[in-house]
Amino acid sequence: MMQRITWLLVAVATVAGGIASTAPASGPGGGEAAPVFGIKVFPRYRDWKLISVAHEAGNLNDIRAVLGNDIAIKSYREGRQLFPDGAVIARLSWNYVPSEENNKVFGRDQSFVAGSRPDWYLQFMVKDSKKYASTGGWGYAQFDKDGKAADEAKHGTCFPCHVPVKDRDYVFTHYAP
Amino acid sequence: MMQRITWLLVAVATVAGGIASTAPASGPGGGEAAPVFGIKVFPRYRDWKLISVAHEAGNLNDIRAVLGNDIAIKSYREGRQLFPDGAVIARLSWNYVPSEENNKVFGRDQSFVAGSRPDWYLQFMVKDSKKYASTGGWGYAQFDKDGKAADEAKHGTCFPCHVPVKDRDYVFTHYAP
Repeated sequence: MMQRITWLLVAVATVAGGIASTAPASGPGGGEAAPVFGIKVFPRYRDWKLISVAHEAGNLNDIRAVLGNDIAIKSYREGRQLFPDGAVIARLSWNYVPSEENNKVFGRDQSFVAGSRPDWYLQFMVKDSKKYASTGGWGYAQFDKDGKAADEAKHGTCFPCHVPVKDRDYVFTHYAP
Repeated sequence: MMQRITWLLVAVATVAGGIASTAPASGPGGGEAAPVFGIKVFPRYRDWKLISVAHEAGNLNDIRAVLGNDIAIKSYREGRQLFPDGAVIARLSWNYVPSEENNKVFGRDQSFVAGSRPDWYLQFMVKDSKKYASTGGWGYAQFDKDGKAADEAKHGTCFPCHVPVKDRDYVFTHYAP
């Protein structure tokens, strides 16, 4: 009996230790809820797995990573048509800047990297088919690097922009294998 | 006593369940070891956390994500000068392609996304200060999307290219917060 308890304690400690060894994510903490959808910054979004990357030229001129919580990643990898409730997709973006450091090594201007964080640094799409039924089952939120939410007018623009990709459950980003 | 055992079993099951719920990564499996450094594809690299993103123009013309295992991520977040042994950095790249789908919505050509995987899809830097003492403490490896390693000549070019960033422990990529 005691041996079993010892084994269980070791197992718990090992597994818990494995989790604790992951350093905390930097970035804005939770706190302020975004207007309209009432979403707060997800505390560990910076630890989420990668969905894909992109560069938006023009006014945005950013380079971005799209990350997903485990439910979103699982849904992507299984190739599902619809994301289940609980799926959350995070979009992180940084100002798109040339890397002088890298270009020196390459001997030409070819390298563009993530610079500082713009006002639209962080966005979330949160699937809750009941709560967000009127916006395709998704809630939307945008925060700056300090966790300050964008205003109500801004949040009113999210859903209309995603409507053209309704047949992909309102999600623009494809999974990059 | 039985209550304690029950509690421990529940704890183990909960924690183990949390881990098991993570879907397996897609991408090339392990197998072939890269020449020179003898590194194989790390089985779960696609689940690693994000370090940063970049676009390489010119001949490469790719968009890339740099991911790290937990040791590498912890080292980055702590702002260490040198990565400890066991740190592994993965560089994934995809062909840089315009997204017609996104551009239609935006009404202009602004969106560039991850396309198919080029021959230089996957690279690793593996810190082992003893094993790789002659190349700055890092081993290097490159694989295509099928897990096929690049040849010996290619692997001979890795370290010389990283020497200019010796003062940052031979690592080009900065952590994007």
